[in-house]
Amino acid sequence: MDRETASRTDDHQALRLWLRLLTCSQLIEREVRARLQGRFDTTLPRFDLMSQLWRYPAGLKMNELSRHLMVTGGNVTGIVDPLEAEGLVERTAEPADRRAYRVRLTRAGRKAFAEMARAHEGWIVELLAGLSRREQAQTYRLLARMKQVTMEAGS
Amino acid sequence: MDRETASRTDDHQALRLWLRLLTCSQLIEREVRARLQGRFDTTLPRFDLMSQLWRYPAGLKMNELSRHLMVTGGNVTGIVDPLEAEGLVERTAEPADRRAYRVRLTRAGRKAFAEMARAHEGWIVELLAGLSRREQAQTYRLLARMKQVTMEAGS
Repeated sequence: MDRETASRTDDHQALRLWLRLLTCSQLIEREVRARLQGRFDTTLPRFDLMSQLWRYPAGLKMNELSRHLMVTGGNVTGIVDPLEAEGLVERTAEPADRRAYRVRLTRAGRKAFAEMARAHEGWIVELLAGLSRREQAQTYRLLARMKQVTMEAGS
Repeated sequence: MDRETASRTDDHQALRLWLRLLTCSQLIEREVRARLQGRFDTTLPRFDLMSQLWRYPAGLKMNELSRHLMVTGGNVTGIVDPLEAEGLVERTAEPADRRAYRVRLTRAGRKAFAEMARAHEGWIVELLAGLSRREQAQTYRLLARMKQVTMEAGS
């Protein structure tokens, strides 16, 4: 560790920043999970998977779905199967590969997701309403920088 | 939804802020998981559990450990048992309740954790090194505000 790095770590600034980021992320995620459960009797991995399918109306292959999921830990097949049984997603043949298929939202799935997404955004707006627009904009800008430098530094 | 809230959501500022926060959190977490695995052959839930025990030298009861864990999804018993088998944690009798026990780090566990924690902080410093000290301080301050308002707004 060189001198500059050592002096940077003396006050644990970077570590404290990371732990605070993690705390904020977990506070909001916990609220979202609880409200998804309470209001829609659904889980964050289900919501997350449906939100990916929403963005890809033509559907996604299973491996693409895994890759796109924001929240890890969800087993894609274990989420897709019940959603299919409930008529919220469907499988469609993949013309280029007879053994493959895509998953996409059904009409009922799109309707259900639209309602959840609207509520979800309302919760986020409400949770962050104590920040002024200016604070939100500043935080967004700084997190854009953080995203950029982290991606550059990552392996 | 009242008028002010409605106008706030027009540009999806709060939602975009939350998604960016989530992205940053996941980028860093992914790096940390990969490096813990690569360098120490360990997992984030294990590291996280040991870091809680580090903060409580007298040990924690199992239910306290669950509550204190930063990273969800880890099954506490499933983490403690292997750590105990490896001699990194031990169970101690709880005087006030004969059926209860506490878990604490052994000397070997403290040594192992100290080394991992040092490496972990180095990774975080490195990942965030592209941010100036001023940017780090600003982000920290804004996230403190976010933590505060989210806790106040939460259920």
